[in-house]
Amino acid sequence: MPFKKVVVAVALVCAGLATLNAAAQTSEPITPIRPPKQLNLGMVELGKKLYFDPRLSKSGFISCNSCHNLSMGGTDNLPTSIGDRWHMGPINAPTVLNSSLNLAQFWDGRAPDLQAQAGGPIANPGEMGFSHTLAVDLLRSIPAYVREFIQAFGDDKLGIHQVTAAIAEFEKTLVTPNSRFDQWLLGKQDALSGEELAGYKLFKESGCVGCHNGEAVGGNSFQKLGVVAPFPGNKQAAGRAAVTGKDADRFSFKVPTLRNVELTYPYFHDGSANTLTEAVDTMGRIQLGKKFSPSENAQVVAFLKTLTGEQPAFTMPILPPSSDKTPRPMPF
Amino acid sequence: MPFKKVVVAVALVCAGLATLNAAAQTSEPITPIRPPKQLNLGMVELGKKLYFDPRLSKSGFISCNSCHNLSMGGTDNLPTSIGDRWHMGPINAPTVLNSSLNLAQFWDGRAPDLQAQAGGPIANPGEMGFSHTLAVDLLRSIPAYVREFIQAFGDDKLGIHQVTAAIAEFEKTLVTPNSRFDQWLLGKQDALSGEELAGYKLFKESGCVGCHNGEAVGGNSFQKLGVVAPFPGNKQAAGRAAVTGKDADRFSFKVPTLRNVELTYPYFHDGSANTLTEAVDTMGRIQLGKKFSPSENAQVVAFLKTLTGEQPAFTMPILPPSSDKTPRPMPF
Repeated sequence: MPFKKVVVAVALVCAGLATLNAAAQTSEPITPIRPPKQLNLGMVELGKKLYFDPRLSKSGFISCNSCHNLSMGGTDNLPTSIGDRWHMGPINAPTVLNSSLNLAQFWDGRAPDLQAQAGGPIANPGEMGFSHTLAVDLLRSIPAYVREFIQAFGDDKLGIHQVTAAIAEFEKTLVTPNSRFDQWLLGKQDALSGEELAGYKLFKESGCVGCHNGEAVGGNSFQKLGVVAPFPGNKQAAGRAAVTGKDADRFSFKVPTLRNVELTYPYFHDGSANTLTEAVDTMGRIQLGKKFSPSENAQVVAFLKTLTGEQPAFTMPILPPSSDKTPRPMPF
Repeated sequence: MPFKKVVVAVALVCAGLATLNAAAQTSEPITPIRPPKQLNLGMVELGKKLYFDPRLSKSGFISCNSCHNLSMGGTDNLPTSIGDRWHMGPINAPTVLNSSLNLAQFWDGRAPDLQAQAGGPIANPGEMGFSHTLAVDLLRSIPAYVREFIQAFGDDKLGIHQVTAAIAEFEKTLVTPNSRFDQWLLGKQDALSGEELAGYKLFKESGCVGCHNGEAVGGNSFQKLGVVAPFPGNKQAAGRAAVTGKDADRFSFKVPTLRNVELTYPYFHDGSANTLTEAVDTMGRIQLGKKFSPSENAQVVAFLKTLTGEQPAFTMPILPPSSDKTPRPMPF
């Protein structure tokens, strides 16, 4: 029998809402992260295993978690990622945290949702280097996985659709509620310091909030990089134009979420900014025509660090062992 | 203040001992795994983070857990490991599970204990590719780590000694009690099937138990590989001779633990056996001069699978973020 769709209620957040609602900031351009709803817990548990399973790569060494490491803000903290045979990736790995809130996936938005994204790296020769057929054959050779797919989906149609659906369902749990900024939004007035509040005021008044707004503080629009002055880093990426084919979309990217931005260094699509100080300075100059003073920059950075929410907390999954029939990885 | 040394009591096992002792198997050559004692919990929690932290590698991509993956029996399930710049390792990565029970560490026993082992891969150019100095400088640049070291050790002497001591303390927790075989040893007579018991009888009567005995079912002696017939795989490794310098110790290796052997494929120092069936057949022929029939082989394999114990269960650690002063990794 498949698990019923269940409503996950995060008691802490709900209790917080009830208690603090009277004083909540209701007219801010950033809104608190809400807990995920309507999750299929069987798929979540299965997807967690798949997310951590390096057997979905040709080498048997690279899993989703290798580049979207949940111990490290859902990223690899590298400028660009390391793929199969140490291939150097073309672009910075975006965080998986709160990625369910994005309007689309990848920097150029070429995947409409998490499920469509999940299949990409598995079959990308420069990432996991495998194929969907090989991944499904491998999973079908592992009896405990076969049973778990039946349990989660209610049938034995184990294909790439089910694999990516389970991974996406797990990823929907990876939201990070209850940041100090969200506590402040929800009415806890002393959750932020004077410097942090000044930084938020600057963030709004300088125009950062024009793109970085909503629940994810970004992730909800595509924007051209280098509006006022040219981007100082790598200018080779096609950006959104790779999807739309329009020259006007060249070097336009999905605005990244600023949730947990303290953890997701280095910054920009090419990972060229190592620190928040540098990233804030660059964005002010090239997007807004504004030169933040050192103290203003420090205030904005202080505000950004209040966006670090509760990180995913779960027991590390134990993967079912390969059977004698399971194809062996090809590490070399 | 440092954490006090605390005694970790695994209630389930202790309760089991009390209830079942009357019928326990007390004269068997294999003994049940006992829970770890006298652990410093501050060091354990710190060591867990370090174990999962890829910043201890040159690339920022490889952690202890990359090759001793706690989701996969404490191994990488590869014949030999992938190191910095996709370097092909010379030897199969032994499981970290129950490694505290080994008489020494590494296949050739060149490290006397877990702490001595932990420093090896960090500085090995073909593994994590870093250096002890760089690793310590990196950790010293991360305020949350500095505080945690002070808390665990009671002083601010953060050096490689403290790093490896914390990792080793975490590794001491990675024992896997309560396998079905241990339940049987402790008196639960129906814990094993007839086939599994027949396999254990064969395991003893054929002589396997001569080397694979004690709490870890191995790990407590060095033995020559190929006593009766030559080893069919890679014959280049020096083995114990690399440590003793004695020609008589050539191709002598630490006997691997058989705990969780169902999870730690492929087998032998060169990872040349993909399945337990193959490993049992080879060991029978080359070490004991015995050709197991297919049904005997299946019985021994069935017994070996009863040695899978409770896998480590802990919340995945969240790593403290780098500071602006933290040296950045060198992935390419």
